[in-house]
Amino acid sequence: MRYKLSAPRDPSSDRFILSKGHAAPILYAAWAEAGLFPVEDLMNLRKIDSDLEGHPTPRLNFIDVGTGSLGQGVAVACGMAYVGKNIDKADYRTYVLVGDGESAEGSIWESLHFAGYYKLNNLCVIFDVNRLGQSEATSLQHQMEVYRKRLDAFGFNAIVVDGHDVEELCKAFFEASSTTDRPTAIIAKTYKGKHFPNIEDLENWHGKPLGDAADGVVTHLQKLIRNAGPIALAPPSPQRENAPKVSIKGIELATPPAYQKGEQIATRLAYGTALAKIAMNNDRVIALDGDTKNSTYSDKLRKAFPERFIECFIAEQNLVGVAIGAACRDRTVAFVSTFATFFTRAFDQIRMGAISQTNVNFVGSHCGVSIGEDGPSQMGLEDIAMFRAIPGSTVFYPADAVSTERAVEMAANTPGMCFIRTSRPNTAVIYDNDEKFEIGKCKVVKQNANDSVLLIGAGITLYEALKAAEELEKSGIHCRVIDPFTVKPLDREGIIQNGAQCG
Amino acid sequence: MRYKLSAPRDPSSDRFILSKGHAAPILYAAWAEAGLFPVEDLMNLRKIDSDLEGHPTPRLNFIDVGTGSLGQGVAVACGMAYVGKNIDKADYRTYVLVGDGESAEGSIWESLHFAGYYKLNNLCVIFDVNRLGQSEATSLQHQMEVYRKRLDAFGFNAIVVDGHDVEELCKAFFEASSTTDRPTAIIAKTYKGKHFPNIEDLENWHGKPLGDAADGVVTHLQKLIRNAGPIALAPPSPQRENAPKVSIKGIELATPPAYQKGEQIATRLAYGTALAKIAMNNDRVIALDGDTKNSTYSDKLRKAFPERFIECFIAEQNLVGVAIGAACRDRTVAFVSTFATFFTRAFDQIRMGAISQTNVNFVGSHCGVSIGEDGPSQMGLEDIAMFRAIPGSTVFYPADAVSTERAVEMAANTPGMCFIRTSRPNTAVIYDNDEKFEIGKCKVVKQNANDSVLLIGAGITLYEALKAAEELEKSGIHCRVIDPFTVKPLDREGIIQNGAQCG
Repeated sequence: MRYKLSAPRDPSSDRFILSKGHAAPILYAAWAEAGLFPVEDLMNLRKIDSDLEGHPTPRLNFIDVGTGSLGQGVAVACGMAYVGKNIDKADYRTYVLVGDGESAEGSIWESLHFAGYYKLNNLCVIFDVNRLGQSEATSLQHQMEVYRKRLDAFGFNAIVVDGHDVEELCKAFFEASSTTDRPTAIIAKTYKGKHFPNIEDLENWHGKPLGDAADGVVTHLQKLIRNAGPIALAPPSPQRENAPKVSIKGIELATPPAYQKGEQIATRLAYGTALAKIAMNNDRVIALDGDTKNSTYSDKLRKAFPERFIECFIAEQNLVGVAIGAACRDRTVAFVSTFATFFTRAFDQIRMGAISQTNVNFVGSHCGVSIGEDGPSQMGLEDIAMFRAIPGSTVFYPADAVSTERAVEMAANTPGMCFIRTSRPNTAVIYDNDEKFEIGKCKVVKQNANDSVLLIGAGITLYEALKAAEELEKSGIHCRVIDPFTVKPLDREGIIQNGAQCG
Repeated sequence: MRYKLSAPRDPSSDRFILSKGHAAPILYAAWAEAGLFPVEDLMNLRKIDSDLEGHPTPRLNFIDVGTGSLGQGVAVACGMAYVGKNIDKADYRTYVLVGDGESAEGSIWESLHFAGYYKLNNLCVIFDVNRLGQSEATSLQHQMEVYRKRLDAFGFNAIVVDGHDVEELCKAFFEASSTTDRPTAIIAKTYKGKHFPNIEDLENWHGKPLGDAADGVVTHLQKLIRNAGPIALAPPSPQRENAPKVSIKGIELATPPAYQKGEQIATRLAYGTALAKIAMNNDRVIALDGDTKNSTYSDKLRKAFPERFIECFIAEQNLVGVAIGAACRDRTVAFVSTFATFFTRAFDQIRMGAISQTNVNFVGSHCGVSIGEDGPSQMGLEDIAMFRAIPGSTVFYPADAVSTERAVEMAANTPGMCFIRTSRPNTAVIYDNDEKFEIGKCKVVKQNANDSVLLIGAGITLYEALKAAEELEKSGIHCRVIDPFTVKPLDREGIIQNGAQCG
């Protein structure tokens, strides 16, 4: 790998993702050995005042994404590699280490297919086939030929090596870097606890310290070391620092909203319009979708800037993982869309995205029962609960085209994860084109001096609230109607104040 | 397929899952043609007062599970086939139809691996490779050889056929039924809208009615029909009705809880104990896990009744889908366990499980921050939000071993989805072994006449509440402490009443 030790996340450096996050101690040890921090710090592993946790997080300056929920690293690596090859068009390479147990996760195969389809030759996936899971042997154990056949069929240059033979590994990594038409998989046959007397290749050692056995093992291993060191290896720097300098700050709609009040526009369509507008303003805005681009209207960006649209097909876990990878090191401002309910498929990736401090923006269409006859499988019903539960998230639920465009603009500039839920049916434009919106500030849509009822409706339910207010008006009951705009944060003060005014 | 028209979900009948749920109209038409309901009813498709929705749900008596979120059918079919082969030991076979677009879902590959690993020769997976997705061509289009290689590598007897050639299909289905060592995949090359003039194999027709083109298409198709009917085919009945009669009602702990008050027992361990006890009481209780059985303690069932434990390895989407399939037609009472947070991986399957009216019980261990140094990736933090959002769910959060055993017993008998969250650390037994528990009824754990503060803590936080109460006692502040036992439903009345009594 080529990287600058002084800036572990420099944009031109190679990337490494430890997908099997539970192997964190050896990753920490490798960076300490390389000189990033004192070797003695390793003794703080898993202590409450140390960031050297049992699984890596980006609180450490050499980590791009949190790992530890298995099967997610390859998607992130795919996002990095896709951006490196097609958007940054830079030399850096991406490496990801996968456990054999975790390769049972379907998400891995979504990502491998993605890498094969897009011929990500700057990606190298290493499989550590050590035969043992947590509670028993893995289903494939050491059937190396089965791994090879599967990876070959998924479009990889698949190389089986003895994972304990450094020379074989070096040759395989060289072959990976010189393979131009495909990504490479290095399938390493290994033994868990190799050379540990009475531990090697045995069950029931997963995630356990050696205890009393430690001293004997260390003494034995030291005897096997041929070059006692100090090892005078320094990491090589990038040959060319050719990842472009980019700015993802201060993104604006290229032109303001331009609607007629009362015009019928679905918020999902306004999303597509706004997406294309911010993409015109900043060339690092990208969009990703899972074969729903003609429904979510993300295809508006694809039509305007085809090279900045990533089609991920029907594989939402990889879709979200690729977006998180693409947004790493602030290389892009990623908007990822599908039906709101299909983001439940990637809840684990979304949850881990928060731990990874991602800035990815999620846009879910077809929310609520208003989609009707397609039935509950297509309705976003749990999406608010899901995205609100994510630490640091912002949840927009705009009601009309004007507020949707502003929500998109704000999401592009808001740190942390943003979720915008959009509706399928057309709704009337109710805001002026120059209306100002704020996160956590509701809008009073209808009011008069005699209001005695407060109705709150977001998105499409705002229109039902307005209809109810009209009905009640006929009986002389005056309603105030407010639009929260964001449902996280919810405008607590605004609601209490309006409620009090309505008595 | 062999089935009784009079009882579409008879336990001895073959199963069929339409994984590509959006093809529902043809499934409805096939059952109407077979004689289950009048053909004229098909005209009610997608009407608000008809259950013939855009995607199938088990409100229809011939549907086992809701489909429409793609990539879930194979897992359900695997659960049915596994039970048919290993638990029912009956003749029925399971068929599942998968779209080529949806085969990009990693969940499919988890399930295919599962089927291959367990040599489910009673399972037949049909791939409808029609080349077209919703918004563009699929990534593999008509690359039949790539599909064949992948399925072969995943352990299937993989047969490529012309999906429009009935004779080829018949031969393939015969081969599937006579293949004894592996499951079979029939990979059918098809054209979307075959024989529809100016529509066949063209984009932009996904999910759209033909409109003005309908009459011309129907006239053309009628000309192609060689046997004008009526078609005198009747579905063949099962040769042997050998699925055993079972009862899954009135399940009890074989022996009551037997703890000492104050004894330190992790609720996850009590889960394992209770699971083995109800399995002793009813031979249809099964458990499934994703390589965490030594952490969740589901291995207690495996040790007692190995034939009723299904190891699903690290593939939580398939894990949940297999459980849902195993519980269909009331064949088993399924308990599925992993770390609570890893159920986020299967949120889409869980959501669809509710639409499928499943009775699967979920048990998630390692909830909350008390797991400590392993870090946030392993902590169940969003699981309550997730399971509470599911319609009809019951969420248990027992604090000690006694209440955990009773929660397990109740979950086994409670319709709809149940979730039990368990903790990693040991906690003291606080309830008598004969204590009675009710869903939605809190327990007052500490009280006296002068209580002025009400503390509510569930699970491990109950002990923190008790500690706080002890601290405050020193300053003369008396606290009442209650344990909600279930957090959905939450005991609204109990909380209000105790709150009022504490002033």
